Amino acid sequence: MVLWMIGLGLGDEGDISVKGLKAVQQSAYIYLEAYTSILPGLDKETLAAAYGVQEILEADRELVESGCEEMLERAKDQEVCFLVVGDPLCATTHTDLWLRARQREIPVRVIHNASVMNAVASCGLQLYRFGETVSIPFWQDGWRPDSWYDKILKNKRAGLHTLCLLDIKVKEQSVENLMRGRKIYEPPRFMTVRQALDQLMEVEKAKEMGVSTGLAFGLARLGREDQVIRAGPVEQLAEAEFGGPLHSLVICADDLHELEQEFAKHYQL
Amino acid sequence: MVLWMIGLGLGDEGDISVKGLKAVQQSAYIYLEAYTSILPGLDKETLAAAYGVQEILEADRELVESGCEEMLERAKDQEVCFLVVGDPLCATTHTDLWLRARQREIPVRVIHNASVMNAVASCGLQLYRFGETVSIPFWQDGWRPDSWYDKILKNKRAGLHTLCLLDIKVKEQSVENLMRGRKIYEPPRFMTVRQALDQLMEVEKAKEMGVSTGLAFGLARLGREDQVIRAGPVEQLAEAEFGGPLHSLVICADDLHELEQEFAKHYQL
Repeated sequence: MVLWMIGLGLGDEGDISVKGLKAVQQSAYIYLEAYTSILPGLDKETLAAAYGVQEILEADRELVESGCEEMLERAKDQEVCFLVVGDPLCATTHTDLWLRARQREIPVRVIHNASVMNAVASCGLQLYRFGETVSIPFWQDGWRPDSWYDKILKNKRAGLHTLCLLDIKVKEQSVENLMRGRKIYEPPRFMTVRQALDQLMEVEKAKEMGVSTGLAFGLARLGREDQVIRAGPVEQLAEAEFGGPLHSLVICADDLHELEQEFAKHYQL
Repeated sequence: MVLWMIGLGLGDEGDISVKGLKAVQQSAYIYLEAYTSILPGLDKETLAAAYGVQEILEADRELVESGCEEMLERAKDQEVCFLVVGDPLCATTHTDLWLRARQREIPVRVIHNASVMNAVASCGLQLYRFGETVSIPFWQDGWRPDSWYDKILKNKRAGLHTLCLLDIKVKEQSVENLMRGRKIYEPPRFMTVRQALDQLMEVEKAKEMGVSTGLAFGLARLGREDQVIRAGPVEQLAEAEFGGPLHSLVICADDLHELEQEFAKHYQL
């Protein structure tokens, strides 16, 4: 019948659109994507109560990676909602779902919403001046990827800002539990501005291309009432308090426009 | 008291968030920004009826450019809403308003929403692979700016897609009416995919850097039920039918990822 892909925006249960809420309330099954972009504090029970629906199912890592078979099967002859934090098509995982639904000739309706990709405008930097977005992953053991450094550098050289999305680890298994096939998950981890900047400063030490000089913005809980935005040089920003997740980071172009400077002053440490 | 800056998203009156609607309904004055990013068919009367409020005032070019004095004055001791199509901080005009409110110590609350900057993900191109966004202005008389061509070229060379925002002319005065101080406005004009591509092909003829070779996407009425997305080579795309405004354009990087190719097939002319 129809698969609704509905963005929940950035903040809380009130960020769904009026149209999205209507679709939720008329659907037979409602799934909450709880794998790539969880919002701390926003669980399926809270949402169900706020939306006035009986039950919201969790689309966890297993369901999503196994292709959401059950969900697609149900969407063939019923209205099914897939709720995604942010915008439903901003993450690759979900564009894939869109494709598979279409291949089965299930109509898909997308309800867009705010995502960090546009709400980052809150820090006052001009959106059109952002270059390629990078993801900074948690380093672990011998695995210390740093290609994101080169991309930030490329943006900087082109006079562009860089939005850095920080790693989220949800429903990860320890190697031991994975080997033994035990579905025991580690507690979720969310990279902080501090951790991202520490990694940045380490790469800077090795590469010395000047990515960590100049202004950066740290953003926490963007779009929520308790959002925190701070601007400053990397070393100072690493010491700033941001509170709970989610955090993001912006590395600025070397020069700021006049209006951007005005904003930066408001957020300066 | 408080200035709410509320994003209306892309589509129709149902795209406001639940939280945004609540703010609208409790506000003493509601202004609709009707200057930079009007949605055809979405007028203040339709919105007022949908939101269940008595009156929505128009924040037109004059009001916005004169600094929204009246609005700020009222926000000092009342709740005032400023409604903006898309996300409220995506356009420079509104970041400026945010600043001026803060300078007067008026608390500002921003309710983000979808904008073309993230909803462009609908065409299946990965958002993080977009480089700098460009605006393509209507050429007129001797004024034929083409710096956007060089920016698209730069993005292409870096393996990035380019979102092209197409010009909107709302409440423009003819030179004669302007000189005579007559507040008579020309009918609004919205650049079409066709017009943008015609300008692109003209610059291509002169510069011959290959920006117009390869795949492009035309997007119309993004996020609405009747949205149209088409992909194809520039010459073919220029001939495609897109219907009414608003239109946008994406010039793709030379190579598409596998998933992006799959999507492009769905939209191929």
